[in-house]
Amino acid sequence: MARPRIPDEFSPRADMLRAATRLLRQGGLAAAGINQIVAESGAPKGSLYHFFPDGKTQIAREALSAYRDAAVERYRARAQGCRSPEEAVRAFFEMGAEASLKTDYRMSCPAGTVTLDLDPESEALRAPCHDVFVSLVDAVEEALSPIPKSKRRDLAGLIVSTMQGAYIRARAARDISPFREAGENLAALAKMLTPSSRNPAPRKGK
Amino acid sequence: MARPRIPDEFSPRADMLRAATRLLRQGGLAAAGINQIVAESGAPKGSLYHFFPDGKTQIAREALSAYRDAAVERYRARAQGCRSPEEAVRAFFEMGAEASLKTDYRMSCPAGTVTLDLDPESEALRAPCHDVFVSLVDAVEEALSPIPKSKRRDLAGLIVSTMQGAYIRARAARDISPFREAGENLAALAKMLTPSSRNPAPRKGK
Repeated sequence: MARPRIPDEFSPRADMLRAATRLLRQGGLAAAGINQIVAESGAPKGSLYHFFPDGKTQIAREALSAYRDAAVERYRARAQGCRSPEEAVRAFFEMGAEASLKTDYRMSCPAGTVTLDLDPESEALRAPCHDVFVSLVDAVEEALSPIPKSKRRDLAGLIVSTMQGAYIRARAARDISPFREAGENLAALAKMLTPSSRNPAPRKGK
Repeated sequence: MARPRIPDEFSPRADMLRAATRLLRQGGLAAAGINQIVAESGAPKGSLYHFFPDGKTQIAREALSAYRDAAVERYRARAQGCRSPEEAVRAFFEMGAEASLKTDYRMSCPAGTVTLDLDPESEALRAPCHDVFVSLVDAVEEALSPIPKSKRRDLAGLIVSTMQGAYIRARAARDISPFREAGENLAALAKMLTPSSRNPAPRKGK
């Protein structure tokens, strides 16, 4: 069910996209220059402009969009085994901790790294970054469905913000405790907002 | 009581430090090259190496440390007028929203932007970034003192993570709602963890 993180065909184009994603996750736009992407992918430089005529902006935009689809898929897959919003929240932050450990705290969400590099020159990448966050909020919101609609969207937004910040603090500390703190506290908040079957809260909205 | 954000003496050294901080807050290490710092500060290039013999690493380290002191002061000042952890949490996120608006979503916490740029070459800046976060967690924890010690540190950590993520999502969306979502939800969590005078919870730890 879960798709691979990045399209895994064997082609110079897919190699370049995967290389760009790794570099963006490491250090944002400054780390993902054309020369670095070419070196990291092992593809010939000429082929980069063949596949991505608009160069760096195009490859970053496509990398962000591939990352978005894969991340949404991972959130959905992870939520499937959970029996409550509380459990799903915990599972999401465990996922963040696993990703940080797996990359030895060298990589995080490319939408986070790129957003913090945005300047007038890279303004075209604001929308693709925003789009990653909106899609992540949607995916988290799905997993919170027992929580009344009026509370659910904001809680999902909070969870996505906290995940971005936990990546940062975990990278700085080389320690996963930010994910644990967040998972435990936000699971408690999700539980508080979930109407219990014994004592159902009014369900507002659709 | 509140100190200025960055040392405000009129000297080429202070000008360069202020310029470096602005550039780090905009785009991390890639935005704060020696040439950019010199251009932004208006100081002669030769004087940069005179004041900061170790160049970019030294100026970034000092900028992070000045930012840390000023940020801790701002958190403390903001908490002083608050009568409960709940109120303080709301006030902290209002402060984040104000900073984002004031800089037209172009700047955020330099420890966040630099952390997401860390690579083997800039490894020396990991500790100063971590140090900013630890100091912010300390400052937030002070404002949560009615909450039992066993819960307080983790909640403070969560708040600092969420603030970092809210800066990111606000920058991508050019919208302060991530601060509002975070402030409202985490204020509710702080309230839940604060023992009420009617129904005091056991106070663990010192």
